[in-house]
Amino acid sequence: MNKPPHKLHFELLTIGDELLLGLTANGHLTFIGAQLGARGVELRRNVTVTDDAEDIEAQFRESWARSDVVIITGGLGPTCDDRTRQSVAQVLGQKLVFDPEIEGRILERFALLGRKMTPNNLKQAYRFERGQVLPNANGTAPGLWVEQDGKVVCMMPGPPNELQPMFTEHVIPRLAQLGLVLDRKAYVQLRTSGIGESMLETKLQPVFDRHATGLGVAFCAHAGHVDCRLSSPGGELGPAEIEAIAAECANVLGEDFVTFGDDSLAKVCADLLRSQDKWLAVAETATGGLLANAFTDICGASKFFSGGCVCYSNDSKMQLLDVPECLLLQHGAVSAEAAVAMATGAAEKLGADYALSITGFAGPCGGMNENPVGTIFVALHAPHGVWSRKLSYPGPRTTIKCRAVNSALDWLRRELVRGKDGAAVPQVRQGVMQ
Amino acid sequence: MNKPPHKLHFELLTIGDELLLGLTANGHLTFIGAQLGARGVELRRNVTVTDDAEDIEAQFRESWARSDVVIITGGLGPTCDDRTRQSVAQVLGQKLVFDPEIEGRILERFALLGRKMTPNNLKQAYRFERGQVLPNANGTAPGLWVEQDGKVVCMMPGPPNELQPMFTEHVIPRLAQLGLVLDRKAYVQLRTSGIGESMLETKLQPVFDRHATGLGVAFCAHAGHVDCRLSSPGGELGPAEIEAIAAECANVLGEDFVTFGDDSLAKVCADLLRSQDKWLAVAETATGGLLANAFTDICGASKFFSGGCVCYSNDSKMQLLDVPECLLLQHGAVSAEAAVAMATGAAEKLGADYALSITGFAGPCGGMNENPVGTIFVALHAPHGVWSRKLSYPGPRTTIKCRAVNSALDWLRRELVRGKDGAAVPQVRQGVMQ
Repeated sequence: MNKPPHKLHFELLTIGDELLLGLTANGHLTFIGAQLGARGVELRRNVTVTDDAEDIEAQFRESWARSDVVIITGGLGPTCDDRTRQSVAQVLGQKLVFDPEIEGRILERFALLGRKMTPNNLKQAYRFERGQVLPNANGTAPGLWVEQDGKVVCMMPGPPNELQPMFTEHVIPRLAQLGLVLDRKAYVQLRTSGIGESMLETKLQPVFDRHATGLGVAFCAHAGHVDCRLSSPGGELGPAEIEAIAAECANVLGEDFVTFGDDSLAKVCADLLRSQDKWLAVAETATGGLLANAFTDICGASKFFSGGCVCYSNDSKMQLLDVPECLLLQHGAVSAEAAVAMATGAAEKLGADYALSITGFAGPCGGMNENPVGTIFVALHAPHGVWSRKLSYPGPRTTIKCRAVNSALDWLRRELVRGKDGAAVPQVRQGVMQ
Repeated sequence: MNKPPHKLHFELLTIGDELLLGLTANGHLTFIGAQLGARGVELRRNVTVTDDAEDIEAQFRESWARSDVVIITGGLGPTCDDRTRQSVAQVLGQKLVFDPEIEGRILERFALLGRKMTPNNLKQAYRFERGQVLPNANGTAPGLWVEQDGKVVCMMPGPPNELQPMFTEHVIPRLAQLGLVLDRKAYVQLRTSGIGESMLETKLQPVFDRHATGLGVAFCAHAGHVDCRLSSPGGELGPAEIEAIAAECANVLGEDFVTFGDDSLAKVCADLLRSQDKWLAVAETATGGLLANAFTDICGASKFFSGGCVCYSNDSKMQLLDVPECLLLQHGAVSAEAAVAMATGAAEKLGADYALSITGFAGPCGGMNENPVGTIFVALHAPHGVWSRKLSYPGPRTTIKCRAVNSALDWLRRELVRGKDGAAVPQVRQGVMQ
C-alpha cells in the first residue's frame, strides 16, 4: 500500500435494519467520515445493508474487492441478528476462534454491572484466526481488525459510545502506523460565530486571493457556528504555511473568530471564565436545562459554574430567583424585564460574576400576539451591568432551543473576550438592547 | 411487478461529498427509510456516493440491475457538481428533453423571490423523454420519475424541506397506485428499559418459539432502552397476529416494557404525569441540566414540569433547595442523604408531587475513594415517600450523564406505572435502597 492517503479507496459498511427503517440516524457515517476527513482521507462510499447474512456477505465481497480499507459497523453483538463476524469470515476464508481472554473481559464486565451473563454473550468471544482484537472500554463486544491481501478490514460494534472511543483510540493509530491516514490533521479549522457562510467567504476572500497557489478552502455551516477549513490538497503548502494563513484569517475576522479547532462555544467561554477567575450562573425557561447542560458537559465545570435554575412556572421564578411577582404581572414572564430579573437573581442567589438567562416561547404551542412562538429574550448579567436582547427564531422546538442557547453562549463569549483584552467595556445599560 | 411490497427490492442512492465527509448527517435515509417502513417496505440498501459522475453512474447501474425501485437524492441542482440527471439518463439510455413548463415554473419562482435568474438554472428544466415530473413546492429543481423495464427510478433534490413534502405528496401516492407500497406498518416495535439486549432475547424466546412460523425478530440497543421489532418478512402473519404476539411479549416483560412505538422515556413519564394530574420537579448536580432538558424537549412541558435546579456548589444546594449545611458537611454532596435532601427540597420549593434528584461524579476528574468517578446517587421523592439509589457507571463524562438521566427517568416511569394501576405501593423508606 504505497499510495498516499488521499488516493486510497476507503468504504464504510454500516449494518442494521434499524438504519434502513429510519429508526436510528446513521451517525457512524457522520463520525467516521469526519474523522477520516481530518486525516486526509475522503470516504469513497458508504453502504448500509440489512442484518441479513446474505446481504452482508454480498456487499462485503463487493466492497472488499474494490477497496484498500473497509470499515464495518454493527452486527457484532450477542443476539441472533448479529451476523457480521461470520459473513466477513466467509469472504476472507478465515476461521473464527474462541478467545478465552475476550471471554474473561465479558465476564468481568457483567460482574462490574452486577448483571447475570446469558450464554448468547459468548458469541462475542470469537475472533479471527489471523486478526487482532480491538478493546471495547464501554461494552462487551470487542472490535476486530484483519490485515489480509494487502488490505485492511476493521469491524466495530454499533453503539456510538462504544464505537467512537474505539475508533479514535485503536483504529486511527493503527491506520496511521500503516500510512493509510495522515498522522496529523489534514487541515486547519477556523471556528466562527455570529457571521453567515456567504459573508464569511466574502470577508476572507482577499486573504485567500493573496495565497491562491495550492490553498484548499471549504466552509461548513452548523447550528450556531460556521467552520472554515484550510488545507493544501496537492501538498504545495506545509502545515506552518497553512497555520500562518489561518492566523491571518482570524485577525481579519476579529470577534467573529471563535477558536482554531473544534471546541464548542461553551468550552471557549469556560476557558475564558477560568483564566479570568470568574464564576457563571444561568437561569432558563424556554431552553429548559440545555444551556446549563452545555456548560456541565465540560470537565471541571465545578471550577467556574455555580449552578442554574430551570424555572418554568412564575412561582419557581419567585421562589428560586427572587423575581418580583409585580414584575411578572406587569411585563409577563416572556419579556426583557423578566429576563433581566432572572439573570440578576441567578447571579445573586448563586454568587456568580456573570449570569445568562433565557426566557421565551419554544413552541409549537404557546406564544402571544406580540411575542409569537420563536420569541426569545436573553439577558446577560456582568460585573459592569445587565442587558437584555430580543431574538426571534423559526423552526421546531428543539431547533429554537438550540439557537437560543448558541446566541446566549456567543454573547457571553464576546463579553469575556472584551474583558480579557482590557478593550473598551460597553456602556452600562439597565434594560433592553435590541 | 406482481410481487407483494415486502418482496420488492428498494434501494436508496444518496449523493454528496458532504455526507461522506461527515459534514451533513444523512437525514434522507432516516426519513425515507421510516416512510417506506410505515408502508410495508424495508429499504434493502442505501448507498452514499460522491458527486463524481463516474461514481454515480457506476453505482446506479449496479443498483438498477438488482432493484425494483431505486430512489435517488441530490445532484439535481443548477451548479456544476449536480450530475445525477445525466448519469441516470446514460444508464437508462434515455434522452433528456427541455421542458418549457418547468422553465416557466422556475422563472415564476425567481420572480416571486424578486431575484434575478442566472442561466445555469435552466439545467433544471430538462426531464427524461419518457418520464414524469414531480412538482417541487419549495425550490427550483423538480423531482423526476421514470418507469422503465418494469422498474421505477425516482430522483429528488437534496434539501430536506424540498425532498420531504415531495416524497409524501408525490412519490408515496405513485408507489401506492402501482401496488409497490402498503398502507400499514411492516412491524410492531416494543420499547423496553432496564433490561439488556441478551436478557431481553432470553426472556422473550419462549414467546417467539410458540410463534416460530414466519415471525421476524430484531433487537436494537440504544442508550437507556432496547427496542425489539416484530415483523413477518414472508407475509405469513397478518398485522393483527403480529400485534397479538407483541402484546404477549409486553405481558411477559411486565414493568420492563415501556411502550409500543418510539416515544422517549421522558415522553412516557410526561404522559403518565399528565394523566394522573401530577407535577414534577428535578434537582441535578452531575447531570447538569440534562434531566431537565429531557422533560422540556416535550411540547406542553409547562403542564407537568414545575422546574429544576442545577446546583453544582454546596452554596447553591443550600440557597436554592434548603439543603441543610450540616447534612452536606456530615455526608458530603455526593451521598444518598444529599440526593434525598435535594429531591425533597425541589419538591417543596417548586410545589411538585414528584421530584427526581441526581448527584455524583461524572468525571473524568473528581471522585473520592469510596465514591470514584462514575458514582451516581439518584433520589425519587413521591407523594408516599422518598428513596435514594446508588449507581455506578463506566465511560466518558457525557455517557455517564446520559446513563444517570436514563436511570432516573426509568425509575420515575416505574413508580408512575405502579401508581396508575393501583398496584402494590413500595414500602416507604427514608435512606438508601441499593
